[in-house]
Amino acid sequence: MPMATKWSTATTWCRCSQGSAVIETKAVVLEVIGERARSASRALAKVPTHIKDRALALVADGLFESADRIVEANERDCGAARDAGVSEAILDRLLLDAERIEGMAQGVRGIAALPDPVGQTSEGRVLSNGLRIAKRRVPLGVIGTIYESRPDVTIDIAALCLKSGNAVILRGGKEAFDSNSVLASLVRDKIEEAGVPRDAVQFVESTDRALVGQMLGMKEHIDLMIPRGGAALVRRVAAEATMPAITGGIGVCHTYIDRSADIEMAVAIANNAKVSRPYVCNALDTLLVDSTVAPAFLPKVAAKLAESGVELHCDARALSILGPASGAVAVPSTDDDWGMEFLSLTAAVKIVDSLDEALAHIEKYTSGHTEAIVTEDYTAASRFQDEVDASVVMVNASTRFNDGGQFGMGAEVGISTDKFHARGPLGLNELTSYKWTVQGSGQVRE
Amino acid sequence: MPMATKWSTATTWCRCSQGSAVIETKAVVLEVIGERARSASRALAKVPTHIKDRALALVADGLFESADRIVEANERDCGAARDAGVSEAILDRLLLDAERIEGMAQGVRGIAALPDPVGQTSEGRVLSNGLRIAKRRVPLGVIGTIYESRPDVTIDIAALCLKSGNAVILRGGKEAFDSNSVLASLVRDKIEEAGVPRDAVQFVESTDRALVGQMLGMKEHIDLMIPRGGAALVRRVAAEATMPAITGGIGVCHTYIDRSADIEMAVAIANNAKVSRPYVCNALDTLLVDSTVAPAFLPKVAAKLAESGVELHCDARALSILGPASGAVAVPSTDDDWGMEFLSLTAAVKIVDSLDEALAHIEKYTSGHTEAIVTEDYTAASRFQDEVDASVVMVNASTRFNDGGQFGMGAEVGISTDKFHARGPLGLNELTSYKWTVQGSGQVRE
Repeated sequence: MPMATKWSTATTWCRCSQGSAVIETKAVVLEVIGERARSASRALAKVPTHIKDRALALVADGLFESADRIVEANERDCGAARDAGVSEAILDRLLLDAERIEGMAQGVRGIAALPDPVGQTSEGRVLSNGLRIAKRRVPLGVIGTIYESRPDVTIDIAALCLKSGNAVILRGGKEAFDSNSVLASLVRDKIEEAGVPRDAVQFVESTDRALVGQMLGMKEHIDLMIPRGGAALVRRVAAEATMPAITGGIGVCHTYIDRSADIEMAVAIANNAKVSRPYVCNALDTLLVDSTVAPAFLPKVAAKLAESGVELHCDARALSILGPASGAVAVPSTDDDWGMEFLSLTAAVKIVDSLDEALAHIEKYTSGHTEAIVTEDYTAASRFQDEVDASVVMVNASTRFNDGGQFGMGAEVGISTDKFHARGPLGLNELTSYKWTVQGSGQVRE
Repeated sequence: MPMATKWSTATTWCRCSQGSAVIETKAVVLEVIGERARSASRALAKVPTHIKDRALALVADGLFESADRIVEANERDCGAARDAGVSEAILDRLLLDAERIEGMAQGVRGIAALPDPVGQTSEGRVLSNGLRIAKRRVPLGVIGTIYESRPDVTIDIAALCLKSGNAVILRGGKEAFDSNSVLASLVRDKIEEAGVPRDAVQFVESTDRALVGQMLGMKEHIDLMIPRGGAALVRRVAAEATMPAITGGIGVCHTYIDRSADIEMAVAIANNAKVSRPYVCNALDTLLVDSTVAPAFLPKVAAKLAESGVELHCDARALSILGPASGAVAVPSTDDDWGMEFLSLTAAVKIVDSLDEALAHIEKYTSGHTEAIVTEDYTAASRFQDEVDASVVMVNASTRFNDGGQFGMGAEVGISTDKFHARGPLGLNELTSYKWTVQGSGQVRE
C-alpha cells in the first residue's frame, strides 16, 4: 500500500487530492485514519487515569489560551454561513464566543473530575471450584462521531472518549469546519503534551459528503458510531452504519395529567416541560388530559403557557373547554400533531377518558424517549411506570430531567432511545465494554 | 391487507404458496409473524414470574410426555439427512434420543429455577432535588434466532427468551425441520396452557433459504438477532442483519505457557483445554510456549495429548525439541495454523521468547473469545490480564471454563465476542435492556 504510506504523513490530505483519483485517494486516507485510531486506541487503553486527567486539564487551559484563535476561526465560519443564508438557529448553534469557550473548558474539567470508568470491576465472586471471576470495564475501542453545526461537540466528545479510554474519529459539519479544525488541533497538541497519543483524537479534514457514507462502512476500524444532530442525520446513521450505532435524540414526549393529579403541580410540570427549553429532545410535545380534570386544569395551564407564547394544537374537546374567551393560543389539532416532535413553543393537547386510553396513545406515538404522568393515585403511577416503554418514565416530574447531568452521570454523549447496550442518558460508563477476568490455581473442567 | 389476514390464520402457510406469488406471499407472512411477535412481546413483558415458570414447567413435562412423537419426527429428519449424505458430525448434532430429550427438559427446569431478570432494579438513588431514580430491567422485545442442525436449540432459546420476557422467532436448519416443528408446536401449546400468548414463540415453517435474508432485514419487528451455528452463518448475520446482532461462537483460543509456569499444571490445563471437548469454541487452538520452559514442557504435554490422538502443528523450534523419537504426533506448522479455529483434535504450537512476543501473537490472531496464561509470575499474570483483549482472560485455568453454566449464570444463549451490549457468556440478563424510572413530587427543572 504505497498510497497509504504516502498519505499517512499528510495532515491535510484531502486538500491535496484532485481530479479522477479523488474517490480512491479518500478511501485510502480514511483507511489510514482508521488504522491510526485503532493503534492509538490500543495505547490509550493502557494510559493511567492521572495522565488522561492531565491531558484534559491541558485541553481546558488550552481553550482559554487559544480563545482568540478559536473565535477568529469561528468568525470565518459564521461569516460564510451568514453569506450562505443559513437560519438564525444554525448560526446560534455555530457561534463560539468567550462565554461558550469558557463553558467548553469547564465541561472538560468536569469530565476530568469524574471517576475513570476503565478498570472498574463488578460481579466479582469465587466459584465453588475456587476460580475467582469478575467483570472489568474496558474501553469500547474506536468511536466515530458525525455531527452537524455545533463546534462544541468536538470538545465534548473528544473529552468523553479520552476519559473513557476510546480513540475517536470526529466528522463535523461543513459550517463549522474551521472552528472544528482549530479545536481538534488544539486537543491533539495538548493530549500529546500530556503523553497521550495524538491520534487518539482525529478530525476528518474534509467537508466532502461522500466521506460520511465511507465512514459508516468502516466497521473494521470503528466500534461505535454516534450521530449528533437532527433527525435526518440520526436516521441516516441508523440505516447505513455497518457498525453498532446509537440512535437517540428524537423525543416525542407526552405528559399525562391523570384525573387525580394535583392541578397546581400539573400546571407547573407541564409549563416547565414545555417552556424551560423548547428546542430540546426532552421538552413536552403532547399533553394528554383526563376528561374529569380537564375543565379545571386546561384553562390554567393554557393561561400559564400563553405567558411564554406557546401555541396549543387542541383536539375538539380540549378546544371546547378552552373556548375563544380563555386567552389561550389554541388552534384545532390535525392528525400530524400526534407523535410530532415540535422543537418549538408548540404543544398538542388531547383529552382522554382513562389511563388505558392515555397508555394506548403513548404506545402508538412514543419515540421511546421520555414519558410522564402527573397523578396522586398509587395504582395509576405504578401502572404507568410498569407499562410505558421508554428510556425514562416519570411520575410527578418534568420530562426535562432526562439528562445525564441531572442524573448525576456528569457529561453525556447523548440520550439513547435504543434498548441495546444502553438506554437513556449516555455517560462515560456507556462508552465502555467489559472483559471477564478469571484467576485460577490450575483448575480444569470435568 | 387481505393477504395478511388470510394467511394469518394459516399455520403451515409456506406449503400453501405456489408459483410466481411465492416471494410476495412469504414476505407478507414473515411480516405477519413479526407483527404477532411484537404484539405477544408487549403482553409477555407484563406476565408475572410464576406464570412464566409454570409455562416452563409444562414445557418440560410436555417434552417427557411427547418423547415418542419427538423421536419419530427426529427419525424422519435423521433418515432424510443420512440419505442426503450429510456428515456424521451433523448427524450427531441432529439426533434427539430419550437421553437428549431428558437433557432438554432438565435444561428448561433449570431456566425456570433461575431468578427472573425482568423487574430487577439497580443504581437506585435519591437525587439532591428529591427525585428517586433507578434502572429497572425490561425485556429487549423480540429476539430472532437463526440456527443450523441442532434441534435442541429450539427449546434452549425458546425457554431463555420466555424467562427473560422476550418473544422469539425461531428459524432452524432444514435438516431438523420436522423435529423443530414438533418441538415448537409443543412449546406453543404448553405456554398457552399456562396463560402466556402462544405467539410469544413462533417457528418459521419453511426451509426456504430466501427467508433468512428477509428475516435479517426485519429491523422493525426484531430487536436482536442471534445466530447459532458455524462461522459462515455467524459472518452472514454480522454482515447482513439490519438489527443489532450478537456475533460470537468463534473461538481461536491461545494458552501461553510462561517461563515460570508450573509444568504439571500447564500440562493438565493444556490437555483439558484441548481434549475435554475439542469441537467447541472454548477449546485450545494454539499453544504458545516460552523458549526457556519448552524443553521441559513440550515433551510432557505432547505425550499427554498423544494419548487422545491430538495432532500438533509445530513451528521449527517446537519440532526440533519434540523430535521424531518423542512419540508425539507432530507435523510442521504452516502460516494458516496461526489464528485457526481447529474444532478438532489438532493444536498449533509456537515457541516464543518473551511475554511480549506472546502478547503480540495473541493481539494479531485472537478472535476475542478466550485467552489464557499459565504462570507463577505475578507481573506476567497481571500484564496478561490487563493487556489481552478478549471476552474472558484467564490465569492458570482451562479455557473450557468460558461458559455461562460454569460462570453460575445458568443456561446461556451463546458467547459473545462483541464488545457492544454484552461480552462473553450470554445469560438471561444479557437478553434484557432497562428503563429509568423517576419518581418525583412535583419537581421542575431550573
